[in-house]
Amino acid sequence: MTTGHIGLLGGGVIGGGWAARFLLNGHDVVLFDPDPEAPRKVGEVIANARRANTKLTNAPWPVEGSLQIVTTAEEAVEGAHFVQESAPERLDLKQKLFAAASRVAGDDVVFGSSTSGLLPTEMQRDMVHPERLVVGHPFNPVYLMPLVEVCGGAATSESTKQRAAEMYRSIGMHPLMLSKEIDGFVADRLMEALWREALWLVNDGVATAAEIDDAMRFGPGLRWSFMGTFLIYRIAGGEAGMRHFMAQFGPALKWPWTKLMDVPELTDELLDMICAQSDAQVDEQTPGMSIRELEALRDDCLVEVMHGLRNRGFAAGKTLADFEQTLFDRGNLVAADVDVTGPIRIHQRSVPNEWVDYNGHTNDSRYMQITSEAGDKFMRLIGVDEAYLQSGCSYYTVESHLNFIAQSHAGDHLYVTAQLMSHDPKRFHIFTTVHRADDDSVVATAEHMMLHVDARAGKSSPAAAQLQAKLAEIAVHHDLLPRPAQAGRAIAQSR
Amino acid sequence: MTTGHIGLLGGGVIGGGWAARFLLNGHDVVLFDPDPEAPRKVGEVIANARRANTKLTNAPWPVEGSLQIVTTAEEAVEGAHFVQESAPERLDLKQKLFAAASRVAGDDVVFGSSTSGLLPTEMQRDMVHPERLVVGHPFNPVYLMPLVEVCGGAATSESTKQRAAEMYRSIGMHPLMLSKEIDGFVADRLMEALWREALWLVNDGVATAAEIDDAMRFGPGLRWSFMGTFLIYRIAGGEAGMRHFMAQFGPALKWPWTKLMDVPELTDELLDMICAQSDAQVDEQTPGMSIRELEALRDDCLVEVMHGLRNRGFAAGKTLADFEQTLFDRGNLVAADVDVTGPIRIHQRSVPNEWVDYNGHTNDSRYMQITSEAGDKFMRLIGVDEAYLQSGCSYYTVESHLNFIAQSHAGDHLYVTAQLMSHDPKRFHIFTTVHRADDDSVVATAEHMMLHVDARAGKSSPAAAQLQAKLAEIAVHHDLLPRPAQAGRAIAQSR
Repeated sequence: MTTGHIGLLGGGVIGGGWAARFLLNGHDVVLFDPDPEAPRKVGEVIANARRANTKLTNAPWPVEGSLQIVTTAEEAVEGAHFVQESAPERLDLKQKLFAAASRVAGDDVVFGSSTSGLLPTEMQRDMVHPERLVVGHPFNPVYLMPLVEVCGGAATSESTKQRAAEMYRSIGMHPLMLSKEIDGFVADRLMEALWREALWLVNDGVATAAEIDDAMRFGPGLRWSFMGTFLIYRIAGGEAGMRHFMAQFGPALKWPWTKLMDVPELTDELLDMICAQSDAQVDEQTPGMSIRELEALRDDCLVEVMHGLRNRGFAAGKTLADFEQTLFDRGNLVAADVDVTGPIRIHQRSVPNEWVDYNGHTNDSRYMQITSEAGDKFMRLIGVDEAYLQSGCSYYTVESHLNFIAQSHAGDHLYVTAQLMSHDPKRFHIFTTVHRADDDSVVATAEHMMLHVDARAGKSSPAAAQLQAKLAEIAVHHDLLPRPAQAGRAIAQSR
Repeated sequence: MTTGHIGLLGGGVIGGGWAARFLLNGHDVVLFDPDPEAPRKVGEVIANARRANTKLTNAPWPVEGSLQIVTTAEEAVEGAHFVQESAPERLDLKQKLFAAASRVAGDDVVFGSSTSGLLPTEMQRDMVHPERLVVGHPFNPVYLMPLVEVCGGAATSESTKQRAAEMYRSIGMHPLMLSKEIDGFVADRLMEALWREALWLVNDGVATAAEIDDAMRFGPGLRWSFMGTFLIYRIAGGEAGMRHFMAQFGPALKWPWTKLMDVPELTDELLDMICAQSDAQVDEQTPGMSIRELEALRDDCLVEVMHGLRNRGFAAGKTLADFEQTLFDRGNLVAADVDVTGPIRIHQRSVPNEWVDYNGHTNDSRYMQITSEAGDKFMRLIGVDEAYLQSGCSYYTVESHLNFIAQSHAGDHLYVTAQLMSHDPKRFHIFTTVHRADDDSVVATAEHMMLHVDARAGKSSPAAAQLQAKLAEIAVHHDLLPRPAQAGRAIAQSR
């Protein structure tokens, strides 16, 4: 990673979320917040983030950075290579903060502001080197949501915008570069338009908070998680395209949308109604859940939606997949010199919730999966890389034998060791053992017979010489290892 | 299912979507559409639906219903037990259609209207028995989207609303019961408020269609797929609750939301800009994709999001899980008398996309999974039911041996046969074979040794007498079967 730490100004829900995202991505963080409760509050957000990130990806996260909480902005900013501000939404306060911080920061340090509504041109007014300020507007929870709206002010330099985007991208976010400064930027505009209409619906007694939420999450909200309103409407327009859609639905849409343009007054009565309905909604949809539990539910659902979209390589799923690739790439650099003198510690991952079946522990088929993944990594170790696969050659599993010895549960950290039992030009026999990371105990074993196949020729074939050489190199050591008790077993039952 | 068919009035994108949903749920459908192109158009929607539904669930769908397309409304409605109207959005046309249809339908037939904006009180005006009409407003694609807004008019009876909701629920939808008639109902109100703001942003050159869509799908849209705007804001408000959120953000929100209240004029210039931006968006995000491919991408993403949420049993994922349960329940009734005289055809499913690995065929671990699922069904067959599991007893897999013989690919239909090799009070040894359904060829085999465990005692234990009796009953037949070639093998390599 880069040198220097991340300086954070403000440690509320948003600032705490930034702290979590930066820390879990291996950055050291120095956070300024005058609130004596800040360490507790930030700690809670980080705990949420650790929990969610374990589920988000099994890619190798870097070693977590260190967190220091300080009581002056200057301490946080001095020596930082990137600063993110998440102070309360008051222009005068932010102007003062940026002015003070800009005096102690290096000349080329980028300042991102988390403001959801204030204009960068106004916030940068009193800064030394105002060209360093850019809006980087994130969404809650910051440690999971990909979107960050990047918007410069009149004095902001192009390189500041690019460097901010690069930083956000490196921690798994999707920077959306806005070309025009506007109150509320884009996403908040859309959210507030919808929210205003929702408040009218409550105000007029048309629908309750719960009904409005249901109208979203069982309906258009499902689609909006991967395609925005324009693409959805274009598809609805069919082959004839967007113009056809506008011609067909423009006039019809105009009829309801010319109503209810005023802003509902937030009277005590309306506020009472909203709060009562909100309470009733929680009681019905998520009975007995605390805010902490609701946060966990929200995070779990976000993870699921992103995982689902990752399967399609689309929208936020592509952001996640690209980010995971960078984690793997960084991890591979570390794994370059693997110790092959003993059983090779070839693979590790934690048990995700969805691996657990109705018995409450990991489903048997997942041990085939995790040892198959280990086999894949072993193949990569001996030289089956992207180019080799492109040539049409690979090893296929032809036979597997598993022994299920103990149980594992959601969240358990597992690692897999691999022992090469034998090999010839066309085959290798590998014995893998799944261990629990906390006590190295054995959970399951699996041996696999792998056959080298030339898919273009449609038959088995000898592996390339360099692969055979690598196998021989490993066998020098592994031939000396004791034979595992479960190797070479057959399933049989004596009567 | 119920007797009689479903009468559909209108076969456009929405009517075709209804046809698909009803057909795939085993209903016979008679559809009225005067368009000579209707059979082709409806056929295309049904093809999309079949494709999507295969991915949506592996639960046993009923046998598909039959489709008949007719050229008069009367033919579609006569003998129907439920009618759904999806004609163009013109009040006079719908009034005439309902009046005519109501004269030939049985007195107690429910009429649902797919209108997204017209009021039921006006649509039911000229009907015989107007109490039978209710709005059932679905969302595109109808065969996947759970939401249907149910809204009665002044004359609509309560039982009509309940019967419509029951019908929609039985085909996997989430009926949202609206208590107040309003133009555009709830979801369209929200969509249009957002859409109006989006059009302003384009009109003012603040953001392009693609940027606006990105601001949704990488941001708030991700959250809206499972929690609506009220619950999301409540969580953001933290422990202090909704009133705190309103106090904190109400005034700040008011500032941008009091702007841009007018409706942008859909001038030629604005239309040109929207269409050009829409083209550019497709070129960039989904280069070269046809509308048909975009539909498939949309459907795949919807399936993924619903699958993801199903893992949490929340929002649309709960709707899906509940629906699958009803499919399983119906399927179990059919499976009650299984033929155990030969290898038992115990399990079937199609290969979903995510089972396919980088080699382009089904990942080896999925054969462990599908045969493990078969083992589960075998356990259910011999009497391991919910009550038995609740008692803390079950069979655990202790050893498995797999042979990978051929390959399967996404969309392939597979079925699994099971042969009981041996059993004693504590164990049974089962040999399973995975077949391709189209030619019965063998793709893989897997044998499993199952051990009966009393989880409360924390050790193995004899199975209940009725389970042992069922195993013995199967063994009478299976002891006579030839021993499979792959049974009892050990993995070994001769040098």
